[in-house]
Amino acid sequence: MSLSEPAAPGPRETGTRFLAEIHEQPDALLRLLERQNEFARIAAAIRERGASTIRLAGHGSSDNATSYGVYAFGLLPGWTALRDSISLVVYYRAALEMSGCTVLALSQSGRTRDVVEYVQRVRERGAFTIAVTNDPDSELAHEADEVLPLLAGPELAVAATKTYVSTLAALGLLAAHAAGEGEAFAGELRATAELMRTLVPTLEGRIASVAVPFAFAGRMFVVGRGAEYATVREIALKLLETCRVAAEPLTATAFAHGPVAALDSLFPVWAIASEDETLPAVLEAIARAKQAGATVIASGSAAQNVEDADYALAVPTPPSPLMSPLLSVIPGQLFAWALARTKGLDPDEPRGLSKVTLAR
Amino acid sequence: MSLSEPAAPGPRETGTRFLAEIHEQPDALLRLLERQNEFARIAAAIRERGASTIRLAGHGSSDNATSYGVYAFGLLPGWTALRDSISLVVYYRAALEMSGCTVLALSQSGRTRDVVEYVQRVRERGAFTIAVTNDPDSELAHEADEVLPLLAGPELAVAATKTYVSTLAALGLLAAHAAGEGEAFAGELRATAELMRTLVPTLEGRIASVAVPFAFAGRMFVVGRGAEYATVREIALKLLETCRVAAEPLTATAFAHGPVAALDSLFPVWAIASEDETLPAVLEAIARAKQAGATVIASGSAAQNVEDADYALAVPTPPSPLMSPLLSVIPGQLFAWALARTKGLDPDEPRGLSKVTLAR
Repeated sequence: MSLSEPAAPGPRETGTRFLAEIHEQPDALLRLLERQNEFARIAAAIRERGASTIRLAGHGSSDNATSYGVYAFGLLPGWTALRDSISLVVYYRAALEMSGCTVLALSQSGRTRDVVEYVQRVRERGAFTIAVTNDPDSELAHEADEVLPLLAGPELAVAATKTYVSTLAALGLLAAHAAGEGEAFAGELRATAELMRTLVPTLEGRIASVAVPFAFAGRMFVVGRGAEYATVREIALKLLETCRVAAEPLTATAFAHGPVAALDSLFPVWAIASEDETLPAVLEAIARAKQAGATVIASGSAAQNVEDADYALAVPTPPSPLMSPLLSVIPGQLFAWALARTKGLDPDEPRGLSKVTLAR
Repeated sequence: MSLSEPAAPGPRETGTRFLAEIHEQPDALLRLLERQNEFARIAAAIRERGASTIRLAGHGSSDNATSYGVYAFGLLPGWTALRDSISLVVYYRAALEMSGCTVLALSQSGRTRDVVEYVQRVRERGAFTIAVTNDPDSELAHEADEVLPLLAGPELAVAATKTYVSTLAALGLLAAHAAGEGEAFAGELRATAELMRTLVPTLEGRIASVAVPFAFAGRMFVVGRGAEYATVREIALKLLETCRVAAEPLTATAFAHGPVAALDSLFPVWAIASEDETLPAVLEAIARAKQAGATVIASGSAAQNVEDADYALAVPTPPSPLMSPLLSVIPGQLFAWALARTKGLDPDEPRGLSKVTLAR
């Protein structure tokens, strides 16, 4: 074969973009750290304006990341952060006072229609608005007072991976600067990126053997608590959109308040078991799941110690509990990639979805 | 048969308590109105303390009701209400400033462990605390500064119905008094209770014919938006706990951001279509569901006009949009009752659950 003869185009391998972008996550995190000054400047502006109630808004993976923001701002500067209702602002036009509020509007594309409209309205009501987006030239970026670019590079797979992880990091970094702990957080983030760089290829090698037994699973609960609730929601969304599994995210306690009754041996449970103060609640949920006959997959930094688990997907112990969700999501991303391929689905292009969701 | 001869005890009919409590809802609502003075007094106390950021906390059906609270306080007095993170307060002990906050702690039994502990902690942090509970002698009631009793009467079925609806009404009534609109809201509540009194027996008569075709459905999405998001969550929980259907609650927009990819003809969608500003978003979601081949059940005050729906469970037009969720939940409650019986399950006592959930 001569070099001038191009190979005949074969069928494109599925999931290559999705997998490549999972691998790109450590570099994306490091790029964010090059903009530390921006985070410091915007955190100072929030303080100067006294706008320390943080309203978070986004859809899909961005909405999942807002759950992390609640913990990052609550634990670092001790500020109240809330996942805001876009409907209340955009559709019902509620007359909320927002002069003491900072709005963080999250959208990978910066084109999500009602997030853009939300920013327009909350600015009118006096909020300090910051767009967190992978496209600093987007409409969302133009509407907001400030922009924090994700710098994750183009994300081509429809299901988000690196923009989700970079959004977590951006929220954490802003919260840390607000608390005067920006440098320490940046150091932890750098260490976490390095742990991730080893974790991804290691897990990739063994993930298919864990995913294949779930080829015919139609439904799943994903449970966890505290800072890992964002991870719970993001893993459930990956399973829904790439694997067509009806995966429902639940806090470990919500799970015990009703949904546990639906379990049987054909209804597996994925539990995020991380080493923090909420671990006992998660272990209690796992025990309830096993009692109901469910198969349990445990992931997270404490997964290895979950005796009840049928499968363990451990991640390294992070430098601090707030770094944990950045590592804990990796097993879910890789499992979704492997399970989708097992089922003959293409995780790069799930049927019926497009990269930019314009639906309201 | 003489009166002194008791009938031999036959097998107990299933779901009788659950059904009886669905029927008791209008009376429970009217009882709440007898305590209007309490609501007025506590609303005035919130204003006097300047504690107009409302933090809501609960688990299970109480947590579902918190989603309604966000809209009631946002639309009536224009106050920011948020579904608080119990983990942040109880497990991580975050140093949040709460002197400008009122906490509404919701628990039917007043015995939910971490809700009780949550109230202890937020009081220490300066919050004004109010227990909303069906047991005014409970531990939760004793820990809080004030109590708003639900007066729903004993709830014996494990799956909540009347305490959920009474919690919505209590949150709405407090929000209305905070806005100086208590009397108007009470009048609407009275009218809504009367609409409910006609609706329940009418729907009861035809619900089995709608439920039976879903006897083998293993999974379902429940979608809606805005003030009806509480209804979405509550109907999904009823289906999970009484019918063992993996029912996932989603806002109409979250549905379009990924989960829609999981749909097929064996994955039905329940949509709450009510006449308010969010209806276009719900109709768009229904169209996407039909496109994916899903069977659609539409309920709510606009259900009759959803051309795409395979089944319509309409409810009367409520006197105001904030009354809508009180009526919209009824078709879901009755459907869960009928479907559970179709499947040979007892909605009074779902396997693996008890009335008071002590799990953290």
